[in-house]
Amino acid sequence: MHAFDEAVALTSTGEHAYSGHTSAAYANMVGPFGGITAATVMRSVLQHPQLLGEPVALTVNYAAALADGAFTITARPVRTNRSTQHWVIEILQPDRTTGESTPVLTATAVTAARRETWGVDDEPMPAVPAPDEVARAVLSTRVVWPQRYAMHVVRGAIPERWEGQGDDSLIQMWVRDDPPRPLDFASLSALADVFYPRVWLRRAQPVPTGTVSMTIYFHAGSAQLAATGGGWLLAQARGQVFRNGFFDQTAQLWNEAGVMLATTHQVVYFKE
Amino acid sequence: MHAFDEAVALTSTGEHAYSGHTSAAYANMVGPFGGITAATVMRSVLQHPQLLGEPVALTVNYAAALADGAFTITARPVRTNRSTQHWVIEILQPDRTTGESTPVLTATAVTAARRETWGVDDEPMPAVPAPDEVARAVLSTRVVWPQRYAMHVVRGAIPERWEGQGDDSLIQMWVRDDPPRPLDFASLSALADVFYPRVWLRRAQPVPTGTVSMTIYFHAGSAQLAATGGGWLLAQARGQVFRNGFFDQTAQLWNEAGVMLATTHQVVYFKE
Repeated sequence: MHAFDEAVALTSTGEHAYSGHTSAAYANMVGPFGGITAATVMRSVLQHPQLLGEPVALTVNYAAALADGAFTITARPVRTNRSTQHWVIEILQPDRTTGESTPVLTATAVTAARRETWGVDDEPMPAVPAPDEVARAVLSTRVVWPQRYAMHVVRGAIPERWEGQGDDSLIQMWVRDDPPRPLDFASLSALADVFYPRVWLRRAQPVPTGTVSMTIYFHAGSAQLAATGGGWLLAQARGQVFRNGFFDQTAQLWNEAGVMLATTHQVVYFKE
Repeated sequence: MHAFDEAVALTSTGEHAYSGHTSAAYANMVGPFGGITAATVMRSVLQHPQLLGEPVALTVNYAAALADGAFTITARPVRTNRSTQHWVIEILQPDRTTGESTPVLTATAVTAARRETWGVDDEPMPAVPAPDEVARAVLSTRVVWPQRYAMHVVRGAIPERWEGQGDDSLIQMWVRDDPPRPLDFASLSALADVFYPRVWLRRAQPVPTGTVSMTIYFHAGSAQLAATGGGWLLAQARGQVFRNGFFDQTAQLWNEAGVMLATTHQVVYFKE
């Protein structure tokens, strides 16, 4: 079994409830990688017996650092229309002091039965060298989760000097699960959060950060994800504003054939 | 009283509950303008007695068309940390068939006590003519809510011919409440949704559309909003992908001094 599937595995414990467990393979500096948590939220919707259609939008709000260990997810389809469905999801863990079950993450999702229509990709994939023409990033082994991905960084790699020399926040990289795994909506949700913090690049200072809220819009259906398979994605991200302890990130993910699979945004806390 | 304040007025009916009423002044083709609904959601958080800090993120999911008339909002601070607070919000109306109170909108918000830090605006305001150098858009009076705004469109006005001649989806316009009203987080939330549908411009076809989910990241504090006052905002939006019945919109709002106040994204349903 792929480490990703182990990490996002959920056991149904009721009509709208699951139990899960954090995975050491996707550990971040404190608690799990935010992307694997988003993927787990996506899984709670995908494996719900009342699911209608496929993901269109997912928003996850990281309310507290997940503690390593067990958690509960509740996923409720609060409104089902003819072709769209609206979900409210929470991850709960016992409060450290009171022991009471407390939200550590809130989320909403929209799924829909999509159909063929007119369409156009207006954000073309940037012209970049092929994945095998770009060296794989050599990452510190201090943090575990980045080792679950092959990242070939075209531009915007983690600074080698932390001397405030940054002048933009754009990263472009080829990325895929390592070992490769056929892309699905859960793994695409994790990949939406695969970027190291934009403020580290923009400031060339490794200040503490934490994603507060992330939204993903899915532009591909399962057939397009299946066609992508275990192949490379081009992932691009940049910040638009850094101010008063928060910055935003706007990002795009294309498959190697140049099909936009997802656009995603997040707002991130940073410490002065 | 400004029509905006009447439209977003809420009466507390319990610890986490309010009653409100749709406003004819902000009517859309069916139900109210989505922006005024987002503003009302923002108000439910802003006037909650347990509010900590100021808005950082708001996501609203439009689960059904609001019926004209009364509605209930529930706004719960589900997690309060030292400097951030996480909110889950719903708008409810009676189901047309069963009469049962049913969600027509789900939302999440994050508020935070922000502090002075290093910062930079990395998405500069585009160079455009001043507001008084651009003609005010003359809009059809068939739809009410756009008449609540003065819109001076720099580029990307609603097509005058619907002949499929579109080639991009970028709009840039100066906009403010009409009559002017001092900007606050609620009115900024409405302005995040002030753009006519990108697909109308991109395709030059006025197909039916509906916003499914919108996220706003607030980059300004109340002092910066107060400094903006009743002045103009430059509002810019474009789509990145249009496919299988949905498109996305990525947008930015600056004040006339060039300060980025908010970035916002939405995913929108469109009919072939």
